Amino acid sequence: MRLRIDDPADPRLDDIRDLNRSDVAERRLVIAEGPLVVGRLLESRFPVRSIVGFGPRLDALAAPADIPQYEVTRETLAEAAGFDMHRGLLAVADRASEIPLSEILATARTVVVLEGVGDHENIGSMFRNAAGMGVDAILFGNGCGDPLYRRVVRVSMGHVLRLPYAHLEGGYTTWQRSLQQLRDAGFHLVSLTPDPEAAHLADALAGRDKVALLVGAEGPGLTEHAMRATDIRARIPMAEGTDSLNLATAAAIAFYERLSRGPSA
Amino acid sequence: MRLRIDDPADPRLDDIRDLNRSDVAERRLVIAEGPLVVGRLLESRFPVRSIVGFGPRLDALAAPADIPQYEVTRETLAEAAGFDMHRGLLAVADRASEIPLSEILATARTVVVLEGVGDHENIGSMFRNAAGMGVDAILFGNGCGDPLYRRVVRVSMGHVLRLPYAHLEGGYTTWQRSLQQLRDAGFHLVSLTPDPEAAHLADALAGRDKVALLVGAEGPGLTEHAMRATDIRARIPMAEGTDSLNLATAAAIAFYERLSRGPSA
Repeated sequence: MRLRIDDPADPRLDDIRDLNRSDVAERRLVIAEGPLVVGRLLESRFPVRSIVGFGPRLDALAAPADIPQYEVTRETLAEAAGFDMHRGLLAVADRASEIPLSEILATARTVVVLEGVGDHENIGSMFRNAAGMGVDAILFGNGCGDPLYRRVVRVSMGHVLRLPYAHLEGGYTTWQRSLQQLRDAGFHLVSLTPDPEAAHLADALAGRDKVALLVGAEGPGLTEHAMRATDIRARIPMAEGTDSLNLATAAAIAFYERLSRGPSA
Repeated sequence: MRLRIDDPADPRLDDIRDLNRSDVAERRLVIAEGPLVVGRLLESRFPVRSIVGFGPRLDALAAPADIPQYEVTRETLAEAAGFDMHRGLLAVADRASEIPLSEILATARTVVVLEGVGDHENIGSMFRNAAGMGVDAILFGNGCGDPLYRRVVRVSMGHVLRLPYAHLEGGYTTWQRSLQQLRDAGFHLVSLTPDPEAAHLADALAGRDKVALLVGAEGPGLTEHAMRATDIRARIPMAEGTDSLNLATAAAIAFYERLSRGPSA
């Protein structure tokens, strides 16, 4: 169903209205921007509510006919969304419920567990890198940002819509208990830390069948509580007198080590 | 020398005026922001012209007395610089001349060569990661962004002020000839590419004494011309049907592989 909308105030554009407003996350929608990410949203488990874009963008997308498609001009889109969007294609979906942890653990061999990672750019990069290097799922511990935040969707290049993720249960200080569920499922739990006393990453991962890699926020890192709940602490070798790596970069290196030299390599 | 400045129009603040203006790069200065990066500028080979900041920030920095230090309020700084700067400390330096390539090659064991990398965030991350993982220098081929651009300095966390870099000589299409200089100095030249036919990164780097790693822009990658001038093409293993990695992330993985399993590991 394709309709042309010329009035930026048209209520059918409400889902994409003022997207830079700070309370937009309260709408609990998923926003995909640009042809690549919109295409991935269409292939995902998230139920698409509508697609909004320039005529040629909608033509090229060839989305299923049962999804409402609103053709707009650049001016109409800019006024409704609140900023100029040169890529001219957006799609909106409802949030689907998370995949149950037990279902993820039934088949996964490599998972990442995040603690206190609030930075949306880091979360998005983590999904992109995880998808690229064969990580099976991302699990959220305490204090993390929203994986379906618009910026995460964009930075992940839509991989947050494809790669399974779940939140670990437990309160503010007790989520680490749910790590036991991973251990029961046969996972070797590895903390990533800049601590020079920790094992070399390659040694910590070598020959392990199933691995859960724990990563904390840039700066504070993992809490001691979380690290104590793991089997081994691992470090990426660094030059002396330098800073630790960006979080998503450090995790990507661990994914590479796992993919290159894990049991399935 | 410490002076208080209360007039945002004071000409002594001209070096930090309107820093978000698009023509600010034409001033050919180096701008360092925040205590960490300002500290690194002070330790660098770049001659510092002045330091501007809030009183407590200047106290904490304890810079040499022969450098002019201008104490300002948050309001004065915001009006002069053109934006609010909560970290309240800036330093300005003149650009120092580049370290000659021959001097770099005399001692380096691992260098990166960039081609067509215009993105300042990627260049900044590259310096941060290179410094963190023992790369000795970054060399600029054709079509790269300015390594002393303010955003590069910030994203690199000041490492662009410490890690040696140089521009390879030659015109728009001929800079690859200067790769011969690297080969003459005993470097094994490795192209990084997403090509699945290329050698595994680990195999391409294994057992090499001196390595020059060539990296192209995200998207187009290295030109065929540049790749032909190298000894081997190397890939990072990726999951099927995914996108290539972010440029700085891919390079960081190569730095890790080199640091972990190079001859000096």
